[in-house]
Amino acid sequence: MRRFVVIGQRARGSPDFLLGDVPGTSGRLDVLLRCVRAGLLVSHGLRRDTVVYLVLLGAPEAPRVLRFDGAAAKYLRPDERSMAVTAQKALAMEAPAGEGFVTVRPGVGLASGGLDAVLGDLGPGERVLLDEGGEDLRGVELDPNDGVFFVGDHIGFDDATRGLLARCCAKRLSVGPLSLQSDDVVAIVANELDRRSLTTSGRSAAP
Amino acid sequence: MRRFVVIGQRARGSPDFLLGDVPGTSGRLDVLLRCVRAGLLVSHGLRRDTVVYLVLLGAPEAPRVLRFDGAAAKYLRPDERSMAVTAQKALAMEAPAGEGFVTVRPGVGLASGGLDAVLGDLGPGERVLLDEGGEDLRGVELDPNDGVFFVGDHIGFDDATRGLLARCCAKRLSVGPLSLQSDDVVAIVANELDRRSLTTSGRSAAP
Repeated sequence: MRRFVVIGQRARGSPDFLLGDVPGTSGRLDVLLRCVRAGLLVSHGLRRDTVVYLVLLGAPEAPRVLRFDGAAAKYLRPDERSMAVTAQKALAMEAPAGEGFVTVRPGVGLASGGLDAVLGDLGPGERVLLDEGGEDLRGVELDPNDGVFFVGDHIGFDDATRGLLARCCAKRLSVGPLSLQSDDVVAIVANELDRRSLTTSGRSAAP
Repeated sequence: MRRFVVIGQRARGSPDFLLGDVPGTSGRLDVLLRCVRAGLLVSHGLRRDTVVYLVLLGAPEAPRVLRFDGAAAKYLRPDERSMAVTAQKALAMEAPAGEGFVTVRPGVGLASGGLDAVLGDLGPGERVLLDEGGEDLRGVELDPNDGVFFVGDHIGFDDATRGLLARCCAKRLSVGPLSLQSDDVVAIVANELDRRSLTTSGRSAAP
């Protein structure tokens, strides 16, 4: 299973944002929603082997985590407004603290907690910190069908998060010479993994 | 100059779409707007060396072309709604047939006509057709600072467009083993060009 964990330093864990102004009222949840599209959607299809976690660290109900699971997701549309509607409906639900993820819509889970809730849910798989100063992804050995990739938002990681991730990640990798928007980072990583997992004769047998 | 030309088979050349339902009312202009973000925006900045053309072939006012020029663009925000507002304002303007591009906002031009209007505006630079059956981009020589990349929308190219592009493009390239959404294709091509044009010591002297 491929997993992307996107950390929103200010993205609100509550549904009280305006669909007509998501960037201005949600703590830039739009940045994170674009990562869901990039991670899960291909042309006319879903990546069934991918999960995207959005870690929402912005007040007032934070920290909370939204989990989008390609294996179970339905009706996921690529446009940002549809993604925002889905997130808003999910964030209106309850998720008792300490009980992990509650399924609030097909393929969409909600948990109370921050990175701790994600780390408790991830299971095995190599952890990779995607960071602009890291080693170039292309030259590094990776399991293309199993791994966890941590991505920052438009602000990047704060010191506490970076410290925690430095301890739990085996590798620190970058996707190229420029600092890119988070969803482009996700798209480029997914493409690199596709290239390694798919043969010219078709999709590999991996999940 | 890097140029991306995104062809919207049904994207409307008129401003009469709803900001609250861009996918359902604009002929999927949302697909094209996401390509503008992927082509022009990096983390906290604009790609000044890139131009994105959106070819709008959907009735009633089509064909028309929107041109987003990174060298002159201002106030371009990454969220889809902001992009749609910019496009809607631009499409409300007039562009006399046969007179090329009219600047309707900083860095945003509008022309009457379809691919012909784009071809008349492009100037020199190798033409590349991005197509899922093409040769892998990574193995092919390209000028990373100058080139024109034609991208399809969610429908792909119709036969007439494909025929025209086959005649004017020197190369037919793909970005990987899966058929991806158009904006991810743009992001992956831009990343490949960045890798070739930027050295580890910093940005090259190229424009």
